[in-house]
Amino acid sequence: MPRVLVTTVPFGAKNRLPIDLLEGAGIPCTINPLGRKVTEDELIAMLPGHDMLIAGTEVISDRVMAAAPQLRLISRVGIGLDGVDLEAARRRGIHVSYTPEAPAPAVAELTIGLMLCLLRSVHLANAQLHRGEWERHFGRRISEVTIGIIGVGRIGRRVLRRIAAFGTPRVLANDLNPDPKAVPELKLEWVGKEEIFRNADIVTIHVPLTPQTRAMVGRRQFAAMKRGALVVNTARGGIVDEADLADALRSGAVAGAAIDVFEREPYAGELASIERCILTAHMGSMSEDCRFRMETEATEEVLRCATGAAMHSPVPEAEYQIQAYAKGMG
Amino acid sequence: MPRVLVTTVPFGAKNRLPIDLLEGAGIPCTINPLGRKVTEDELIAMLPGHDMLIAGTEVISDRVMAAAPQLRLISRVGIGLDGVDLEAARRRGIHVSYTPEAPAPAVAELTIGLMLCLLRSVHLANAQLHRGEWERHFGRRISEVTIGIIGVGRIGRRVLRRIAAFGTPRVLANDLNPDPKAVPELKLEWVGKEEIFRNADIVTIHVPLTPQTRAMVGRRQFAAMKRGALVVNTARGGIVDEADLADALRSGAVAGAAIDVFEREPYAGELASIERCILTAHMGSMSEDCRFRMETEATEEVLRCATGAAMHSPVPEAEYQIQAYAKGMG
Repeated sequence: MPRVLVTTVPFGAKNRLPIDLLEGAGIPCTINPLGRKVTEDELIAMLPGHDMLIAGTEVISDRVMAAAPQLRLISRVGIGLDGVDLEAARRRGIHVSYTPEAPAPAVAELTIGLMLCLLRSVHLANAQLHRGEWERHFGRRISEVTIGIIGVGRIGRRVLRRIAAFGTPRVLANDLNPDPKAVPELKLEWVGKEEIFRNADIVTIHVPLTPQTRAMVGRRQFAAMKRGALVVNTARGGIVDEADLADALRSGAVAGAAIDVFEREPYAGELASIERCILTAHMGSMSEDCRFRMETEATEEVLRCATGAAMHSPVPEAEYQIQAYAKGMG
Repeated sequence: MPRVLVTTVPFGAKNRLPIDLLEGAGIPCTINPLGRKVTEDELIAMLPGHDMLIAGTEVISDRVMAAAPQLRLISRVGIGLDGVDLEAARRRGIHVSYTPEAPAPAVAELTIGLMLCLLRSVHLANAQLHRGEWERHFGRRISEVTIGIIGVGRIGRRVLRRIAAFGTPRVLANDLNPDPKAVPELKLEWVGKEEIFRNADIVTIHVPLTPQTRAMVGRRQFAAMKRGALVVNTARGGIVDEADLADALRSGAVAGAAIDVFEREPYAGELASIERCILTAHMGSMSEDCRFRMETEATEEVLRCATGAAMHSPVPEAEYQIQAYAKGMG
């Protein structure tokens, strides 16, 4: 029987089905004893002796794979592949699967919650009232602002469809492959990223982390932004430069931000000292239904692999090419 | 020329037009020097010598009116009439106008922001990360929960229409006059309030404050709620019993709450010590566009009254009857 390592956290926490599926198939599984995202070296220590990995967002490099020659499947709970060296996996004959659709509704919904909080200063009023201060903050409604969205894929288009119910904001959109039918409910203006940074009141990011998107939003972009601009990142840590964001929030170049994803998680950096920055703990996909679907789909890939069946959701060829291209450019 | 007292706060803060309108008409106006909601006694001290009042949510009792025999118009910036003794105003020949439509979109939007925050524990994660803790909270999406809504009028129906874009939750709805066409996008189950308290995962309130709705949500209702239930009040202070809510949050009978309105404002009570309770400073209508529209509409009523023109938005007869009926029952 193949042996499975589960590094993603949580796993089977609200619904044991994924664990039961493995047990029912008689597949021994080790669950990440650290209870948090593992480092590359920790994974190198844990992985040997396992044939399959049910993975989170940790780094799965060629070094990691070299340490575990038995490995034949990486089954990602979630969508981002920035941590996985796809070319190395292919070279070593390791299958890579993921669950691209499952997290999207939950991430979109958290994104809108964070946008509404920022626009109405809920986080500021809440902190003030909890220390005995009363300030009635003016806010803006969705339909009063220009929304800038970078990445109109699975998640970005879901954000915009829900937003359309709040009225019709001006939307500046950017995507590598603009799809004019992405959001039938809204008229999008497809523009360059620079125009988004210059003209949006609130910028939200829904792209993968690649060498091209790393530090895509930093000092120069913050300096270009409008007075009172807000920034939301529920995509991936590293896309927004954290040190530059802290500077921009302190100087007032950026009025507020909501950050769910960080370069290093668990996060413990300087944004924690800035009240205008809403911080959440990589919770975009953490709705009970989406998390359950992600964990179950990733586990089902393990069961398929164990019985020699074809994968349902292998990472498509385009992702390998994008990563290879990005590496060449990086 | 009539003299105008403005008690509502803020007034003309983001856009001076309401002040300019009064100045342009040569109408002298005094703006509430306290910069906060006035008490009944403070209003009795301020109002004499003024012919018209541009009012907030403060108490405008028969005593207040008796102290200002010149008064001929109360022009409410906003919608709630719980502070105004309508029968006394009628008896004294004082017109009462209000701005019932203007605040609704902004209140609905804040309500949804608060619901999403509560459902995803944004407030808890934010507080934790700001003190160096990392906890990935599980949440629920709108479409995973049963929403209980009490009051499906101007604001309640706007909340539900926007929510429909997030999927199709089960909605338990209660209203004195159920309108089957209130929300074409959703199938509402019209039920009694008790069923809402028993079966909803999140209860949101959109009714006026009357003797019948005062303390409508208290110890008994919290005790009936499901494990993990959440409560949102952006309607009016006094509808949710604050001391009972604090007890219910501390005991865990209620998992979380978001409260924008309080019995006494500025608020400084025990909910401030409870992190599971999101607190905002009566900011429902505080979007720039809605606040501007409310202030402008209320000012235009003053100009009409000054020139002897008919009011555009007098409080309708039904409101007088509801208040008289409620007083009889109270």
